[in-house]
Amino acid sequence: MSQPLDRRKFLRTGALAGVAGFLPRSSPALTLDVALSDIGKSKWDLDTPALCVDLEKMERNLNAVHEALKGTGVAVRPHVKTHKCPAIAKMQVTAGAVGVCTAKLSESEIMLNNGISNVLMTGVNISKAKVQKAMALRKKYRGFIQATDNPQNARDLQDAAKAAGITADVVVDIDVMKRSGVIAGAPALALAQMVDKMPNLKFRGILAYDGGVQHVMGFQNRRAKALKNFEPIVSTYEKMKAAGLNMEIFSGGGTGTYNMVKEFPGFTDVQVGSYLFMDCQYIEIGGEKNEKAYDDFTPSLTVLATIINNNYPGRLITDSGTKALTLNRPSPFVIGEPGFAYAAGSDEYGTITFENASKVYKVGDMLELIVPHCDPVINLYDFMYGIRNGKVETILPILARGKSQ
Amino acid sequence: MSQPLDRRKFLRTGALAGVAGFLPRSSPALTLDVALSDIGKSKWDLDTPALCVDLEKMERNLNAVHEALKGTGVAVRPHVKTHKCPAIAKMQVTAGAVGVCTAKLSESEIMLNNGISNVLMTGVNISKAKVQKAMALRKKYRGFIQATDNPQNARDLQDAAKAAGITADVVVDIDVMKRSGVIAGAPALALAQMVDKMPNLKFRGILAYDGGVQHVMGFQNRRAKALKNFEPIVSTYEKMKAAGLNMEIFSGGGTGTYNMVKEFPGFTDVQVGSYLFMDCQYIEIGGEKNEKAYDDFTPSLTVLATIINNNYPGRLITDSGTKALTLNRPSPFVIGEPGFAYAAGSDEYGTITFENASKVYKVGDMLELIVPHCDPVINLYDFMYGIRNGKVETILPILARGKSQ
Repeated sequence: MSQPLDRRKFLRTGALAGVAGFLPRSSPALTLDVALSDIGKSKWDLDTPALCVDLEKMERNLNAVHEALKGTGVAVRPHVKTHKCPAIAKMQVTAGAVGVCTAKLSESEIMLNNGISNVLMTGVNISKAKVQKAMALRKKYRGFIQATDNPQNARDLQDAAKAAGITADVVVDIDVMKRSGVIAGAPALALAQMVDKMPNLKFRGILAYDGGVQHVMGFQNRRAKALKNFEPIVSTYEKMKAAGLNMEIFSGGGTGTYNMVKEFPGFTDVQVGSYLFMDCQYIEIGGEKNEKAYDDFTPSLTVLATIINNNYPGRLITDSGTKALTLNRPSPFVIGEPGFAYAAGSDEYGTITFENASKVYKVGDMLELIVPHCDPVINLYDFMYGIRNGKVETILPILARGKSQ
Repeated sequence: MSQPLDRRKFLRTGALAGVAGFLPRSSPALTLDVALSDIGKSKWDLDTPALCVDLEKMERNLNAVHEALKGTGVAVRPHVKTHKCPAIAKMQVTAGAVGVCTAKLSESEIMLNNGISNVLMTGVNISKAKVQKAMALRKKYRGFIQATDNPQNARDLQDAAKAAGITADVVVDIDVMKRSGVIAGAPALALAQMVDKMPNLKFRGILAYDGGVQHVMGFQNRRAKALKNFEPIVSTYEKMKAAGLNMEIFSGGGTGTYNMVKEFPGFTDVQVGSYLFMDCQYIEIGGEKNEKAYDDFTPSLTVLATIINNNYPGRLITDSGTKALTLNRPSPFVIGEPGFAYAAGSDEYGTITFENASKVYKVGDMLELIVPHCDPVINLYDFMYGIRNGKVETILPILARGKSQ
């Protein structure tokens, strides 16, 4: 326990006075303060690159998922790794979500500390320090549920829960796509029974996330793959149920499969995330009613960019590159310009090449882009502009931005 | 000027009480505070993903560039878009840099407001709002120099400088790679002369950045391309000089060409950035003495990751995906494991596939990774851990993180 001493030593010696000097003057809090002065402006008067969400469209998406799932018995437990914004998580809860999912412990902490009371962390905390922190968080917030996927981790959770003097809520994450989770079948059943028997853990059910299937092209193709991939999970669920385990949570799915998960016996809630915003990746996959474009939800998230150079015909340069849009594929769509190919490969610049444009673009003209993949783009910004009728209505701070720990 | 009213209305109506409620409780300042308690710890005890810089190696790189350029007449003006950290910029100035370069206005502001007095902004500010803000910044800080690359922008700068009651320092950015800059030759000369004649602007020289050539494989190949691409720039420089213009700045180049730029007549300073950290992209290109690996500088920047799943042979899952490492290529190198192929394509997870490993990896084991491309990776984190002899010596806040405006 030498940290306090080291920290005192650090502060005392002033060996890093430079650092101390750099801390207070400029902070993201200041950025938000500056952004607040943008409230009321037209979005076309914003400094770029600017991350914007059209509030009316987002609200439409927020309600659409509940409408679509009405009467199916499937609840909504949105994954907030997409937006990392407690204010939006609160809107999701108000719209009827049974709680939210988080990917990481630091993200969970931000949500719980900012008024979101039911948080299911789908990632597993491995290090002793993280396990202890998670159990301290559970002690403070009764609505925090933690996933586990291996026996040693279950034992570590038990030890930390006991040390914290609590009975902690735990779900077992089951492997679907060779990423996280315990192997389905006997290993998953054994782990669930192990957790169930531990005196300081309460087994609440299972998770299984099939990330690989979310972007499969074509609704029927996607549905067939989703059902096939989930067969071992459903069979494991049946075994657990037969063994008398508490199966109150059977969670998984996403924006690409939200209207298929009702076909899984016992399934309780879907972890939609991108449905609020949509992005180029999801638009491409096609939906049940429209095989060409996935239009169950409306694209609401955009980045505003400014053209800064037009030296060459068929070529425009913008101020929005990798640091504003990521390198995800497909490339950003320029709204109103289907003939534009946007490359965000330069850190600071976007490059558009085209043969046909709807107008002649001048330096200083602005463009609005649909982002390639919403999650990592949002993770680049400190806040989103909340736009209604073309004007800034609110600032949405992305408080868990960068919280990947 | 309706912003203040709108803001008051916003605060009065409380329509967005949610936002106000979300502002104060959790802020990145808190993150830094938590990180300070890590000082003195072994890097292997840090929470992951963790962005680390080995201070001894970084200091070696910091000095190596000055050593290499001694006697060449080429000064160092590091580009801080790479690290976005005023504390590191200060180290660069202390080591002998003539100033720093910035890409964006918001980045420039952070540097100037945090004690970096000579800042050359290589990007052009296009919108009227940005031009006015830039001139206000120049009024406050005499060491701020602004690039321009088109006549309308030069007129806008003149108007804003006049309105601010200053004479502003301006350089002309010349196009090398069809990205930013005015076309070399007559258009560049005309723009320089136009700036030079403007009563509230002071022409200080030129910039030309050849980003495309920095990562060309093989030293001689790279050198040949760099010299060829720069021919129109050098010829433009000669014309400007002959026209009697003030050519005190002729800036460009980067980590891939720092030891070639002395071959350009009149060249004054090199905009190295990645030299401090290195990354997978630069290691691959080869150097003058070592064609296989570019070892003029030592990799100092790493991300620490934790293995969280080892269900399958030849496959390991880590806690560090796109949000910790970006999608840049080549993929991250795992230090000590040349046989590991690291895929950072999942937002939250890294996937390693391998045939040979130096040991059997358990869940909870840590790995240290060299990042694909330093700039966008650093832009994901609020701070770097400064490591010396394997222990955390300092926290380096990345104050301009996300400042892409």
